[in-house]
Amino acid sequence: MNKIKFKWLTVMSVILIVVLSCNTTSHEEKSLEKDQIKDTDPLPSWNDVSSKRNIITYVEAVTSRNSEDFIPVKDRIATFDNDGNLWSEQPLYFQLFFAIDRVKALAVDHPEWKNTQPFQAVLENDMAELAKQGEHGLITLVMATHAGKTTDEFDQDVKQWIKNAKHPQKNVSYDQLVYQPMLELLQYLRDNGFKTYIVSGGGVDFMRAFVTDIYGIPEEQILGSRIKTSFDYNNGAPVIHRLPELDFIDDKEGKPLNIQKIIGKKPVFSSGNSDGDLQMMQWTASNSYKSFMLYVHHTDSIREWSYDRNSHIGKLDKGLDQARRDGWTVIDMKSDWKIIYPFEK
Amino acid sequence: MNKIKFKWLTVMSVILIVVLSCNTTSHEEKSLEKDQIKDTDPLPSWNDVSSKRNIITYVEAVTSRNSEDFIPVKDRIATFDNDGNLWSEQPLYFQLFFAIDRVKALAVDHPEWKNTQPFQAVLENDMAELAKQGEHGLITLVMATHAGKTTDEFDQDVKQWIKNAKHPQKNVSYDQLVYQPMLELLQYLRDNGFKTYIVSGGGVDFMRAFVTDIYGIPEEQILGSRIKTSFDYNNGAPVIHRLPELDFIDDKEGKPLNIQKIIGKKPVFSSGNSDGDLQMMQWTASNSYKSFMLYVHHTDSIREWSYDRNSHIGKLDKGLDQARRDGWTVIDMKSDWKIIYPFEK
Repeated sequence: MNKIKFKWLTVMSVILIVVLSCNTTSHEEKSLEKDQIKDTDPLPSWNDVSSKRNIITYVEAVTSRNSEDFIPVKDRIATFDNDGNLWSEQPLYFQLFFAIDRVKALAVDHPEWKNTQPFQAVLENDMAELAKQGEHGLITLVMATHAGKTTDEFDQDVKQWIKNAKHPQKNVSYDQLVYQPMLELLQYLRDNGFKTYIVSGGGVDFMRAFVTDIYGIPEEQILGSRIKTSFDYNNGAPVIHRLPELDFIDDKEGKPLNIQKIIGKKPVFSSGNSDGDLQMMQWTASNSYKSFMLYVHHTDSIREWSYDRNSHIGKLDKGLDQARRDGWTVIDMKSDWKIIYPFEK
Repeated sequence: MNKIKFKWLTVMSVILIVVLSCNTTSHEEKSLEKDQIKDTDPLPSWNDVSSKRNIITYVEAVTSRNSEDFIPVKDRIATFDNDGNLWSEQPLYFQLFFAIDRVKALAVDHPEWKNTQPFQAVLENDMAELAKQGEHGLITLVMATHAGKTTDEFDQDVKQWIKNAKHPQKNVSYDQLVYQPMLELLQYLRDNGFKTYIVSGGGVDFMRAFVTDIYGIPEEQILGSRIKTSFDYNNGAPVIHRLPELDFIDDKEGKPLNIQKIIGKKPVFSSGNSDGDLQMMQWTASNSYKSFMLYVHHTDSIREWSYDRNSHIGKLDKGLDQARRDGWTVIDMKSDWKIIYPFEK
């Protein structure tokens, strides 16, 4: 290789590194990037199905500068639900497994829990009894395990748990139960200048403790439910304490409200899997830019779980009706995805 | 110029465009960027004073890969107060001028305001009477002008106002009363991979309507006070209504609490001008990374306004004491800044 050619290749590599490491890609980058990636399949774990084709057609339409549907980079906001949309949520929301595991770990300091519901049900593995405790029981569990400590202490609790805990049925750590096709979609959108957000009913600080590395989404682009906090001093050093009181539930109409409060822009792309995501979808669909609404439909009882209209977790009923009526894209997990989890590769 | 040299220059230009248009700059970009900008003064409107030198010394220390104080790009969070820190705030917060102007514009539809406080005081330009109405009077004014409409309608109100309204003493539009040296500081930090945020006691949607273009800070990086909202349907189309009820006051301990809720990371750099920013500064100072706390001290009664410990607006008392005690950097506006506003250039 002659010297000039070598120099040229080096420079091209630098450009490529810069482009790929750039979160908000400008128009100038875009054309470069397009040339680099157009010959590779951005969604290799997807079968060649309409959901995949719809996504690619949309992304090409809104990122081509000459397209009448072109969207400036600053407005390419993409919002994703988490539970059941980026990772599994059966047989219980994974955050609830965290709460259960924490109750068991903390029980030694709380002898009274042996005879107090909902703790007794958890300690006796009596899920029927736990279900009977209803929403109030759940909130009691969450507060006992998520509040009464500083933000740093809670962060450590979650990091410790995710490193060690195993899903009771799949027998792998919870962070392995993310959907490989969705990881590819997140990356594909970012490669095309979209800013990807999580907008989840789950606890925002629970997610922030570990999902950044998995999804490539920074802490400041994670929205979720939260409890109240207070600012205090511990021997002169400022700390934030987590209080046992709900502050905001990021579900249903809470999702567009939180998006408006925190992001301040209407998304152009949103993705969810339940009726809890419907208002976020409707809000996105009302964007004056061309928008894309994507539902994940859980149809694979072998590789994952199969559920929709009658499920207690991730119920998808009205959302499915509106998606079909309005022509939104619905992913059929069983037939659309070659693999579900990264470890199947 | 020979062909190879020309090609090389073209490629270097492309790299420069990519680097400069990139919000979150990676390490690879950093070294490139450093080479490009090190010979130009990043803060030309600042005199060669200790505040300027402290800033540059800090930025170089935390962005040099070989420095023991190096901070990864993802953690370079910089938070700025707005009123009195990025633009002026005298003789009243500019958002209050907006409320006053709106009351006058809306008075034709509210004949009862002629005899109802605090509206009567506003309509009669009786600032002494308005001051007597206290906090309750202010909140009444804010709710009458900021609530009872959709987010889109309010956005249009503010955009219309900022285009036409003039500051009563400076006789220029309010968006011209931003501090040129701070605009340079924001850009300098972004050029060095910092993500710049506004964290203000002002209304978040008021700021989002126009400050993005002025400061180069996108809507999603603006935190502020807010009122409650509701998600509704208008003939089937989703809308968000602004309700006449406070949701969150982003001042004092509210600042670190809101930073933790929304950004989820502790800043490494923060800047303010009043005791309302002190808790944000303390929170920043507690970062395990090397941090930088910057106070703007209003000392220039000729070019701007001079006020600190006894001011009703922007009171700087405890903050000044802690800054001096802990060695935080304090800008003396009169002697540190060559010009205050961009139009003085």
